[in-house]
Parts: sequence; C-alpha cells; structure tokens
Amino acid sequence: MGANPSASLTPSIASDHPGVAELFAVLAYGEISAFYRLAEEAQLSPSMKGKLALAKMAAAEMNHFETLETALSDRGIDVFDAMAPFVRALDAYHDSTNPSTWLESMVKAYVGDGIAADFYREIAGALEPEVADIVRDVLAETDHSEFVVDEVRNAVAASRQDKDRLMLWGRRLLGEAITQAQFVLAQREELTELVITATGDLNNIIALFDRMQESHAERMAVLGLI
Amino acid sequence: MGANPSASLTPSIASDHPGVAELFAVLAYGEISAFYRLAEEAQLSPSMKGKLALAKMAAAEMNHFETLETALSDRGIDVFDAMAPFVRALDAYHDSTNPSTWLESMVKAYVGDGIAADFYREIAGALEPEVADIVRDVLAETDHSEFVVDEVRNAVAASRQDKDRLMLWGRRLLGEAITQAQFVLAQREELTELVITATGDLNNIIALFDRMQESHAERMAVLGLI
Repeated sequence: MGANPSASLTPSIASDHPGVAELFAVLAYGEISAFYRLAEEAQLSPSMKGKLALAKMAAAEMNHFETLETALSDRGIDVFDAMAPFVRALDAYHDSTNPSTWLESMVKAYVGDGIAADFYREIAGALEPEVADIVRDVLAETDHSEFVVDEVRNAVAASRQDKDRLMLWGRRLLGEAITQAQFVLAQREELTELVITATGDLNNIIALFDRMQESHAERMAVLGLI
Repeated sequence: MGANPSASLTPSIASDHPGVAELFAVLAYGEISAFYRLAEEAQLSPSMKGKLALAKMAAAEMNHFETLETALSDRGIDVFDAMAPFVRALDAYHDSTNPSTWLESMVKAYVGDGIAADFYREIAGALEPEVADIVRDVLAETDHSEFVVDEVRNAVAASRQDKDRLMLWGRRLLGEAITQAQFVLAQREELTELVITATGDLNNIIALFDRMQESHAERMAVLGLI
C-alpha cells in the first residue's frame, strides 16, 4: 500500500506539551547550524551571485532562529540550554554530509533542508494553530532557492558525470537525515512522545515517511536529478 | 579650532545625483563583506553566545544588503555591476585588518563598523529625505552590539595587556579605514563629487573628520579602551 500524499495530521497536541519546547529547540539549533554551513559553503561559489544567494539563505535562517528564540523565551526557556541536547546529532549530520563541491552544497541546501522541513511540517499538522504557525513560519522556503534550482539544473543537463554523482549525493543526504533524526528521537523522550502522539499510530508513521520519500523524489526531479 | 559636534550637513543633493547609486553600491558591498567576515569570525568565539551574537550581526548586514539591492533595482541598476568597482578597496580594508583573536574581531565589529557608519551618516545629512532614510536604515545599529561591549569591557578590565593591544588595534582600524576611504574616493568621481557637494567646503570636510575622530574616541571609551 503506497502513501496517501493528501493525508495529513489533525491537531491533537496541546501547546503546553513539553515536547513543543524541544521541537522549537531542535529547530533553533538547526537554523544556527544551517547558518554557519551556508555562510562557509558560500566560499565555494565560483560567482558573486552564488555567494550572495547562499548568504541570503543563511541570513533567512538566522531570522528564523530569532523567531524561535522569542517563542522559547515567551515560555520562560533559555534557548541555549534548550538547544544543548541537539548539538551533537545535528553537528554529526553536517559533518557526515560535508559538501566537497559547489554543486554538492547547492543540492544539500535544497534537498537536505527540504527533508527536514517536510518532517517538521508534518508534525506541525498535529499542533495547535499558534504553535503550528511558528513552525511553518520558520520552515517557509525563501525565494533564494530558485537560484539553487537553476544552478543545479544547468549543471546536470551539461554533465552526465555531475548528474550521477549528485544523484548518489541526494540519496546519501536522505539516509543521513533519517539516521540523525532517529538519533535525536532516541534521546529526547518528550519530543518522541510528541511525534508519536502527532502521528497517531505505526501506520501513520509509515505513511508519513512514505510521503517524505515522495517529496524527496520530487525535489530531486526539480533539480533535474531523475 | 576644534570640531563642532552639533554641526551637521543640510540636504543639498538631489536624489537622482549619479553619486547616490554609487553610495548605495559601496554600502551594499560593505554589507556583503561584513556578512562574510562576521560569519567567519564567529568561529573564533569561545562561547555559543558569542558565536550567535556575531551570526545575528551578520544576518542584519544581509537584511541591509537587500534594502540596498531593492533601492538600486528601483533605479534600474544591477547591484552586481554597481558593486564591482568597490570590491578591491573594501577587500583590502578587511585583509589589512584581519583579526587574529576573538577580542580583536569584537573590537573591529564595533569600532570599524562605527567609523564607516559615522561617515555615511554624515553624508546622509546632505541627501534628500527619501535617500537619507535608506542610508540611515542600513546603518542602524543592531542591539546585538551590546554583547560586544560587555565582552570587550570585561576582558580589558581584567587584562592590562589585552587593553594595550586593543587600543593599538583600534587606532589601526581608524587608519586603515581612512586609507581605504581615500582610495575609494580617488577612483569614483561621482561619489567624490557627492561627498564634496555634501560637505560644502574644505573647512566642513575637516570638521567632519574631526567629528569622526571624536566619535571614534567615544566608542573606544565605551569599550573601556581609554
């Protein structure tokens, strides 16, 4: 039985569920680590336009971070304390998917972030609107990703070798993201409880991962990686 | 005769003066180069709080860049073309003032940016309100600089050696900034014409530089470097 792409979760998690703060915290550290990664990888760009596209994406991540910092401090929670448990897993994801070329960094910015965003957006479906809005807000795609799409499409249309490499790279990004997500959940009871409550039962979790794989395949196709 | 700190320029430059686009362009490249510098120097920070303070400052620079990019494109000017003439001078400034310690990078973020902001803010006084507002907007200090002030004050209160070194460092930042400003002006006729029109005559230029030196001394004092 395949996934039902139109299926989605319905709100069932109170906004004071302790997993909500953990969700904000893991998103917050995600934004910071994405900021540094993008700012650093911008140096790989052969063009000023490319450097700038990544810099803008990086700045957008930091703006999202500030939204989450405020949401946590509204709950009386210090963002640094809250993020601490997630540092290792997210750093491990980035270390294991460190791009060695400009094209790899483009694909990671688009595909890697997309996988994470899909997961959190699904969870948002089970959250009360005031919480869900914050999650969706910080996951909003920026229009800078258009640049990434054009850059990668043109490159892979011109080189079969680049295309083959980047298809493998995309698969690796998906694998590493899932590995690290499991690692995060294994360590954080309240967040795990939230995810289980959000999804309802095992069938729904399977359907959710099916939907994520489909979205991943769609994003790869957008990049010409098909 | 000393500077008159209350003196300021009055609007005398039409908003379609060709130097206005050059002013926006040099500010735009200034924001980009500050972004990369701050993002890179954040790695020098011994603490997550410090890393984050610089990351937020970097993101603010990129938001300012987008304001300038829009202002230029409203005038039908491509930001990349417009910035090109300023790349060498601004890169030279950053290369010649590359911080080797976390404290040096803090002082540069506060004092170096302050010198540039003083200069552009003075020029803004001679611009039509709609242009002046853009300039002032992108020069607005962010509240993240509070972190810098605390960090440096505490360090120099604790170490005479750090204090002596950072006082020399501050002087060097001022010198290099003036050198590079002269280099920029020597190359860009329209911008130079704008600055000369803005200031009016030689006495006013001298008064402007006196005011900049005073503001520099005040900023050093705020950091405990006195």
